[in-house]
Amino acid sequence: MPKTLIHKDLLFPAEPGVRSIARGLYERVAGLPIVSPHGHTDPRWYALNEPFPDPAGLLIAPDHYVYRMLFSQGVRLEDLGVPCLDGTPVETDGRTIWRRFAGHYHLFRGTPTRLWFDYVLQSLFGIDEPLTAANANAQYDRIADCLARDGFRPRALFERFNIEVIATTEGPLDDLKWHARIRDSGWKGRVITAYRPDSVIDPDFDGFAKNLDKLGEITGCDTGTWNGYLEAHRKRRAYFKSFGATSSDHGHLTAETANLSATEAASLFDRVRNMRAGEKDKRLFSAQMLTEMAKMSLDDGLVLQIHPGSWRNHSAAMLAKFGRDKGFDIPTSTDYVSALKPLLDLVGLERDLTIILFTLDETSYARELAPLAGVYPALKLGPAWWFHDSPEGMRRFREMTTESAGFYNTVGFNDDTRAFPSIPARHDVARRVDCAFLARLVAEHRINENEAHEVAHELAYTLAKRAYRL
Amino acid sequence: MPKTLIHKDLLFPAEPGVRSIARGLYERVAGLPIVSPHGHTDPRWYALNEPFPDPAGLLIAPDHYVYRMLFSQGVRLEDLGVPCLDGTPVETDGRTIWRRFAGHYHLFRGTPTRLWFDYVLQSLFGIDEPLTAANANAQYDRIADCLARDGFRPRALFERFNIEVIATTEGPLDDLKWHARIRDSGWKGRVITAYRPDSVIDPDFDGFAKNLDKLGEITGCDTGTWNGYLEAHRKRRAYFKSFGATSSDHGHLTAETANLSATEAASLFDRVRNMRAGEKDKRLFSAQMLTEMAKMSLDDGLVLQIHPGSWRNHSAAMLAKFGRDKGFDIPTSTDYVSALKPLLDLVGLERDLTIILFTLDETSYARELAPLAGVYPALKLGPAWWFHDSPEGMRRFREMTTESAGFYNTVGFNDDTRAFPSIPARHDVARRVDCAFLARLVAEHRINENEAHEVAHELAYTLAKRAYRL
Amino acid sequence: MPKTLIHKDLLFPAEPGVRSIARGLYERVAGLPIVSPHGHTDPRWYALNEPFPDPAGLLIAPDHYVYRMLFSQGVRLEDLGVPCLDGTPVETDGRTIWRRFAGHYHLFRGTPTRLWFDYVLQSLFGIDEPLTAANANAQYDRIADCLARDGFRPRALFERFNIEVIATTEGPLDDLKWHARIRDSGWKGRVITAYRPDSVIDPDFDGFAKNLDKLGEITGCDTGTWNGYLEAHRKRRAYFKSFGATSSDHGHLTAETANLSATEAASLFDRVRNMRAGEKDKRLFSAQMLTEMAKMSLDDGLVLQIHPGSWRNHSAAMLAKFGRDKGFDIPTSTDYVSALKPLLDLVGLERDLTIILFTLDETSYARELAPLAGVYPALKLGPAWWFHDSPEGMRRFREMTTESAGFYNTVGFNDDTRAFPSIPARHDVARRVDCAFLARLVAEHRINENEAHEVAHELAYTLAKRAYRL
Repeated sequence: MPKTLIHKDLLFPAEPGVRSIARGLYERVAGLPIVSPHGHTDPRWYALNEPFPDPAGLLIAPDHYVYRMLFSQGVRLEDLGVPCLDGTPVETDGRTIWRRFAGHYHLFRGTPTRLWFDYVLQSLFGIDEPLTAANANAQYDRIADCLARDGFRPRALFERFNIEVIATTEGPLDDLKWHARIRDSGWKGRVITAYRPDSVIDPDFDGFAKNLDKLGEITGCDTGTWNGYLEAHRKRRAYFKSFGATSSDHGHLTAETANLSATEAASLFDRVRNMRAGEKDKRLFSAQMLTEMAKMSLDDGLVLQIHPGSWRNHSAAMLAKFGRDKGFDIPTSTDYVSALKPLLDLVGLERDLTIILFTLDETSYARELAPLAGVYPALKLGPAWWFHDSPEGMRRFREMTTESAGFYNTVGFNDDTRAFPSIPARHDVARRVDCAFLARLVAEHRINENEAHEVAHELAYTLAKRAYRL
Repeated sequence: MPKTLIHKDLLFPAEPGVRSIARGLYERVAGLPIVSPHGHTDPRWYALNEPFPDPAGLLIAPDHYVYRMLFSQGVRLEDLGVPCLDGTPVETDGRTIWRRFAGHYHLFRGTPTRLWFDYVLQSLFGIDEPLTAANANAQYDRIADCLARDGFRPRALFERFNIEVIATTEGPLDDLKWHARIRDSGWKGRVITAYRPDSVIDPDFDGFAKNLDKLGEITGCDTGTWNGYLEAHRKRRAYFKSFGATSSDHGHLTAETANLSATEAASLFDRVRNMRAGEKDKRLFSAQMLTEMAKMSLDDGLVLQIHPGSWRNHSAAMLAKFGRDKGFDIPTSTDYVSALKPLLDLVGLERDLTIILFTLDETSYARELAPLAGVYPALKLGPAWWFHDSPEGMRRFREMTTESAGFYNTVGFNDDTRAFPSIPARHDVARRVDCAFLARLVAEHRINENEAHEVAHELAYTLAKRAYRL
Repeated sequence: MPKTLIHKDLLFPAEPGVRSIARGLYERVAGLPIVSPHGHTDPRWYALNEPFPDPAGLLIAPDHYVYRMLFSQGVRLEDLGVPCLDGTPVETDGRTIWRRFAGHYHLFRGTPTRLWFDYVLQSLFGIDEPLTAANANAQYDRIADCLARDGFRPRALFERFNIEVIATTEGPLDDLKWHARIRDSGWKGRVITAYRPDSVIDPDFDGFAKNLDKLGEITGCDTGTWNGYLEAHRKRRAYFKSFGATSSDHGHLTAETANLSATEAASLFDRVRNMRAGEKDKRLFSAQMLTEMAKMSLDDGLVLQIHPGSWRNHSAAMLAKFGRDKGFDIPTSTDYVSALKPLLDLVGLERDLTIILFTLDETSYARELAPLAGVYPALKLGPAWWFHDSPEGMRRFREMTTESAGFYNTVGFNDDTRAFPSIPARHDVARRVDCAFLARLVAEHRINENEAHEVAHELAYTLAKRAYRL
């Protein structure tokens, strides 16, 4: 039984020479501030600075990585405190949920969740033995005790985590009141928003038509017309920028883009707006809107993030019972080369535009994304994403992108999480994996050690700041 | 020249620390009984317990891994004793075939066949020098001599191999007489069958219509109607269960499933049954039948195995001359996320159902299969299959599935072979590769060594028993 | 700061035992002659044997690997001396270009370009410190000084590089006058051509119709008819063979093949010839022509190379401004199993035919290409190509093809380059990566060390000669 949950050599290659190089690289970047340019924490936390709820409410019920694994092995979401839309009663006792989780903790062996969780237990709550059914109660008590203290409130943790800047994600209909509250509070923590307009771009989004009505009200634009609709976007983007936004984010099903004439686009919008659009029209509209967003980015400087390829809410029954985002988003095969061509023909050569591409389809790393980012000035590669935000996933990302795109067409790390306590763990894993990769390059005499130090610093800190204009 | 064909550290990582961990893990699982829940050995062997034929007839002519490689380099199948459908005379002298094989043994460098073959030579026949043209005669003599002894008959080998249970594969039209003979013989070896109904489900299967007639005769059901046809399946499944079957197995071209209404399904069956089905109907029928099988599994508890993605008998000329299964089955790109949705919407959340997914398209491991199995309770992942039943293939399987699905949504190892003597070799390779993978996780401090021991035991033995309900 | 740019252990695994094996393997193949069966150097160089231009004109402006990376980071091609079609003035001062490149040299960290470049600097120009902005001038002077010497003229380098044979690539309309000049010069260097008929096979090629007219003039065949057109190919192939050609090369968008009747083919040709072909016809024509080329290969013995899957000149604007082949060729997903079936059904079992398959879609290595090449006698696998001609790319190629196709269904290394000075570097990288792979197999006791020596020799030298009939 180890005396520590997180070994100092975690994730470093076993070969002593390489490990020694990795350690040396990591030592110099381990303590760098966290730049978190893309994530989903709740700005309310920073605004109100209230204590977090009990251990289960903080660490289990909101983490789909956690409950999807338990669900796959027969544990019902109700029994983990995940709320049902239909009002079915769910477990509310945090301790019971925690014990249930502890009894299944072996399921996470070999997964990143295990690493993040152990990291949180140790670094945040000072726990140094693995969670088991036997010690679940004691660990629960200890964590609950911590959470009640002021030093564990959101702002204190933000500072303790050494977060230089964090971006949240809001939709165009959000009034950003929590961001306003943060700004007005005098607290120095830098929390910015990001513009995520899926709810007014995806015609299949819940309440799409009403969302557009509301967008019109908020902006005073006529969202019944194409030009008014575009103008409304411009106004909201400007508003988001006034709360620090430097990027927009787009979760389309595919990477398809289009470049319609203004007339065609207006006519398409008309059909979509009046609910006369078929599947083909809906996809075309999404495609056109990526291009419109890119054009606006050229004007206002927001970085455009494209996150395609997730089949959201794959299980109809789970969507009906528990709602969106319950661990049933499944990646699909994703094309970029033909999908992005209309966009790239229009703005791909622009040197002042930054488009960051993500993928859940690793086959595109070496085949499409690295060759594209290795030549188009507007393109950069986002880090290994979601299911690939993991040691093996990150390693494959570097192995499959570096040779064609280099390091400098990538943008550092995104934690992409709503699990606030896990943010340092996630950045730590990324820094370790990148240092391990660089150490191998050094050991194989492919780069020099001093270069590796420079690159490690870029990957851990500088690239994210530069790419996201932070 | 080494003194042994199979080194004790075979397949373990070279780094001494990791190797030492791998050895320690392997030591405790190397001797575990073999659970072989999916394979294609001939039940007649165990029933009659007759001596195996000569070395070439046992080790070369029936092994498509062997003869496809030789064929690719210009050796004719006739010259290896593979029978021709048209009666073309083929080589019948085992020694000549063996010598021909020995002269090409270098072709297998770097392939799993080489490892399996060496393992068999050494562990079964006590041979400790590599096969060459020079020693081919002597090795042939030694093997032939062994095969003549009682200790090399099927049942003796079964016991020597420490097989706890082995499944064979039979079609619904099989009377399972060899299984009956085994059962009635008083021999204690556990040989069970598995239900493989391709011949009465795939409308393109040779003699499909006649097969359905025969299915009707055997079961007393009216296989001219949809309901009668389904009832016939139910009866045969029950019959197979009475011979120990715990699973069904389905070798469809794709993973497509469907969920038609009873009326639509009956009408589709009608077209298929009366040979009025076009390509689209045929595919839809196969798709619907996967769903029907899953529904029956819910009732009778058989584990459903889906083995899609192989373009069978790719060469028309070879199919015409030598028949099916002559090494010309080629994998194709395979989608699971949309293909399985109808089935998953119907039964994917069932906790008492087990559906085991296999693939020949490794791109689906991390992108589709691990995310699916990591959330749907009914889904488990079959091991690296066929061309990927190899050290690199197994390593990639673990590297690409563990982080999203964990170890516990996988089902241990399947040898999937008709090459009986190679079974211990195949399980040994799998155990070694899994221990090597676990050793790396331990060395990189991602799991503890005691956890690795537990997982190694699960992968080598327990998971297969549990998943296949053995 | 290291004393050498290329470490003697470059690319060898760090673990001392494996490294030692790799060194031992490499030592025996490092000095083997270079066989370069597929490349794009300019035969004019060897014919005229004039000095190469200044350092930038030799090493930067013609190398799309180099300038695409700089372009991706905002450097304009004009500023690197890449000529514009529209006559826009471009930088002509080699020293300025060289300094610009030096200032961005860090971008190449982790890329093969860096390895090749360092190798050239060191082995050819005796430079032993990394290129930086600070030493750019000095290095420029040194290289310029070298290039002025006789020992750096093409033929001297050819001999110094120990090139046993090199193939260039020419189109059917080329008169091969430079090859004639080489042949007539009395120089002993073996420079052969290869038949690359894209300009008269791809209906979308610039000037296709005129190209066919010209093909008719050159051959005296009526290229207005299908039979005349085929005969013209036969004549040109024979002409190319008289200049040493042993292969043809085909850069189709896909691997699609067809096997039309003579009547259908003639009618299709008619539509294509008279510019009445739609997209579908054009693709079918390309598909049919691969089959026609294979049939001609059966007669004349030329090895058929298929290089599919590159979306050429992806950026319309860059194509318009700078022309073809400016680093904007992007790989796409590529199917082989169904695409090649018509061709394989016709000639796939021929033992006297050699078809070499390349891919830019690594997903096809283990799924399609290795299983195909591991059974069809006519098929061999070309080496890791283009973006995958890199250490990680080559490693993945071996890891994903060897277990199903073995080593002997691969064809050694192709440098595939027009960057003449980099040829030894590229072969050296390939030899090192293959030795590293083999060393791992030895260390894991998967092959013996003496076998590894044999295989290393095959991969570095013999396989290319045999496969390309050199």
